[in-house]
Amino acid sequence: MNAGKNRRRGGRQRSSAEPVRQEQDWMPAKRALKPAEVLSADEIENIHNRSLEVLRDIGIEFMLPEALDILEQEGARVDRETGIVKFDPEIVESWIKHAPPDFTIVPRNGERSLHFGGDDIVYGSIASTPNVMDLDNGRRPGNKKDFQNLVKLSHMIGSCGLMSGYPVEPIDLPANHRHLDCAYDFLTLTDKAFRLYAIGETRTKDTLEMIKIGLGLDQDQLKQSPRAFAVLNVNSPLRVDAPLLEGCMELTRNNQAVIVTPVAFSGAMSPITLSGSLIQHNAECLAAIAFLQMVKPGAPVFYGSIFTNIDMKTGAPAFGTPDSLVGMIATGQLARRYNIPQRVFNGSTSNAVDAQAAYESMFSLWAAYLCGSHLVLHAHGMMEAGLTTSYEKVLLDAEMIQMMNAMSRPIDLSDADEAVEAIRSVGAGGHFLGTPHTMSRYKTAFHEPLLSDWRPYEFWQKDGSQDTAKRANTKWKKMLNEYEKPAIDPAINEELHDFVKRRKHEIGTNEI
Amino acid sequence: MNAGKNRRRGGRQRSSAEPVRQEQDWMPAKRALKPAEVLSADEIENIHNRSLEVLRDIGIEFMLPEALDILEQEGARVDRETGIVKFDPEIVESWIKHAPPDFTIVPRNGERSLHFGGDDIVYGSIASTPNVMDLDNGRRPGNKKDFQNLVKLSHMIGSCGLMSGYPVEPIDLPANHRHLDCAYDFLTLTDKAFRLYAIGETRTKDTLEMIKIGLGLDQDQLKQSPRAFAVLNVNSPLRVDAPLLEGCMELTRNNQAVIVTPVAFSGAMSPITLSGSLIQHNAECLAAIAFLQMVKPGAPVFYGSIFTNIDMKTGAPAFGTPDSLVGMIATGQLARRYNIPQRVFNGSTSNAVDAQAAYESMFSLWAAYLCGSHLVLHAHGMMEAGLTTSYEKVLLDAEMIQMMNAMSRPIDLSDADEAVEAIRSVGAGGHFLGTPHTMSRYKTAFHEPLLSDWRPYEFWQKDGSQDTAKRANTKWKKMLNEYEKPAIDPAINEELHDFVKRRKHEIGTNEI
Repeated sequence: MNAGKNRRRGGRQRSSAEPVRQEQDWMPAKRALKPAEVLSADEIENIHNRSLEVLRDIGIEFMLPEALDILEQEGARVDRETGIVKFDPEIVESWIKHAPPDFTIVPRNGERSLHFGGDDIVYGSIASTPNVMDLDNGRRPGNKKDFQNLVKLSHMIGSCGLMSGYPVEPIDLPANHRHLDCAYDFLTLTDKAFRLYAIGETRTKDTLEMIKIGLGLDQDQLKQSPRAFAVLNVNSPLRVDAPLLEGCMELTRNNQAVIVTPVAFSGAMSPITLSGSLIQHNAECLAAIAFLQMVKPGAPVFYGSIFTNIDMKTGAPAFGTPDSLVGMIATGQLARRYNIPQRVFNGSTSNAVDAQAAYESMFSLWAAYLCGSHLVLHAHGMMEAGLTTSYEKVLLDAEMIQMMNAMSRPIDLSDADEAVEAIRSVGAGGHFLGTPHTMSRYKTAFHEPLLSDWRPYEFWQKDGSQDTAKRANTKWKKMLNEYEKPAIDPAINEELHDFVKRRKHEIGTNEI
Repeated sequence: MNAGKNRRRGGRQRSSAEPVRQEQDWMPAKRALKPAEVLSADEIENIHNRSLEVLRDIGIEFMLPEALDILEQEGARVDRETGIVKFDPEIVESWIKHAPPDFTIVPRNGERSLHFGGDDIVYGSIASTPNVMDLDNGRRPGNKKDFQNLVKLSHMIGSCGLMSGYPVEPIDLPANHRHLDCAYDFLTLTDKAFRLYAIGETRTKDTLEMIKIGLGLDQDQLKQSPRAFAVLNVNSPLRVDAPLLEGCMELTRNNQAVIVTPVAFSGAMSPITLSGSLIQHNAECLAAIAFLQMVKPGAPVFYGSIFTNIDMKTGAPAFGTPDSLVGMIATGQLARRYNIPQRVFNGSTSNAVDAQAAYESMFSLWAAYLCGSHLVLHAHGMMEAGLTTSYEKVLLDAEMIQMMNAMSRPIDLSDADEAVEAIRSVGAGGHFLGTPHTMSRYKTAFHEPLLSDWRPYEFWQKDGSQDTAKRANTKWKKMLNEYEKPAIDPAINEELHDFVKRRKHEIGTNEI
């Protein structure tokens, strides 16, 4: 299932047997460095206990009566008037133990299955932005054409393991059947795993039906393995909205993966301190995960963290900052305490595809890597704290993620005898450029960048002094020109098409 | 001596007692995350043993007869005709044990003393570039005016602990007395520690004399503590040049610090594989460090690494790459095996202050951090693999280094009771913006960036759509306008001036 597994260190010769990876190669990756720690085991235990106190004494609001029924049945104290649910610690502790430590999502193309757990790390596309921009046409509202282009690009980029959601919102499509059009594109323009927006039961059921058609599954087969996932955002502080609960319950009943993620930016939706934010964030994760396990014990879930703060001057969320990194590492320690796969993100607040865009995302990517996370949503293309997707930033992020992945290339030290012979033959003051040791390895010895220009200044200048964003612009246009739709059985394609047509008719539009 | 020492985690309240640091605050830093490892202890031991074999069987060239005398006297096998020196492993092993595990460099301003060892990490300026550039005036050869401006900026930037060397080569100054002018500027425009170029005995002695005058020391006092440092580059493969040996021997005799750094880019000056490069790099470090310890046992030295490869397509060195990061982490493991402080660098090959400049330097900074290094030279301003200093890149690097430093701000979890009360008072669906818990902390809760623009797109656009480089341009000009020369005793200033005048006269120029 997991193409990453045979990439363990020492498993293969790095220098000759392994080709240099290209941007279009399928590239699940393993972490080569151990997760970092910023808190002691005692401190983590203290956060855990405080979170349980919050759930026992303050509680958390579940806005769906059906959810309250289940919670009450499992022994939580439910206030029917306010929707506030209080949990005795033992209830939370016993239910979160049912969450599996790892699982695999199997999309339409089984070779693009993704394992979440252990040292594996998967980077997804950007998702859910209302705007899109590129260097040629500037910034504009999201639309179907850009949506499709960005799905195609995400399909082609090897470091992009899945669709984190709509890579831009196609707001030219009516909201009541947008999920049908988008699911059709996700099932035909790419064969990678994708997120569905579990907003209410109907949309969720529609999308699950389409997954069954697209993957050729009956209801029992669907339940055998996660095929897709959704995000259950906690509307922090301490509130879980009804439509998401409804959709995510439907997914969970069908054994599909749910990512619990509090939107709890410190200073606004959670306390301004690290301790306060961690306590609340963890309480929210534990409550929602415990609830989903009540719905179906053993259902695949992620402990999700988009831990950061708002900028106290502007009120805007600050992404890719040192405070965020420290907090993310702490949430990673918590997720490992519970042995639940962790989901994080790659954030940038930059308005331009410039140095800020790069250093914020690079800091986010290091936070994701060092916190030991397994899934990085919004990894390719975020600008403006999630308000805009940039085509050029998609490529910039691909470059940086491929750098992270290349760190994990297997290290092979077995050529030491040959290397010492090369040192001897070259001797003091010589060079290694033409030695057999070099010549037999030079094509594949080092990571190849996507966008970096390493030429001397004069050559670069003669070529138009193109900065990284301009080079990314050239690159994505070339890629889109070369895009090929993944093969699909025409009968399946027709069945999907018919399903979309029928459901649109039922919903009340004939557009297609 | 070490301002970093009182910044240990938990030592102080982060949220209220510690002010947010500004770009001009003196900012020595501690590492908050443990150094990473990419090789096993056995693999490190194997590299170590192979390096000793190289020194025993192949040897390394020392191009200075005086050095050969010392090496022969201490039992190395010296070929007088070729200058090749072969070492029995016991000789190397016994001498490198004399290198101290940590030491402190005390510059003119004792409050800006720098401790090298343990968890401390110091970032220096850029050094030794032939060109300089800024957004207003483009790219041009280095000169005295830019040299002085860059010293002033480096003086003002809190994350810049020392002058790594000339922040640009003032090539309008005659080479035979450039060291006098530059040392005068280093001793008067800033009070931070600086590097001297130990090229030959005369220049080295001149600069040491000026340090004695500037710091008010006699010869015995000079020897009591390192006041300055130099870099001894190994001219890889396996060759140490005469003038550097001569200068560095003079420094070592005076108990000043020497940074041994092989210039051994894989594929050209060392074998193309990680194993071969590490073996050669380590052999070169060990030989030069053992030699310096023969000159003066216990003299302060650094194990220096600028480990990377050339790009096999262009022949240019590739900086800030994943291969470099893996190699740097391995050299960090070696330096820790010998318990010798490690020096690394912050490299970028970019021609523009753009995304590439940011992601390459950010990757270099993470390599420096995770390899456990103690001194990062060339940290503020490198472009074009060291051919150019950019004013804007100086500020960009300061931003990124201050992000690294901010990770190490003390974590204080002691407000948990108060935070839980804030969570209780806000309740489900509220917000924390006006709570007492927030109001008492919001001014200092989070790291403040130097250059990042977090405003909404429309505000940023109205303000001229300035990218990060443009904002850095505005910032450095403002800083230079606000520069103030650090205080110096007028008598000392006059004595320095007179020394420079006299030595120039003796050397054969009356320019001043």
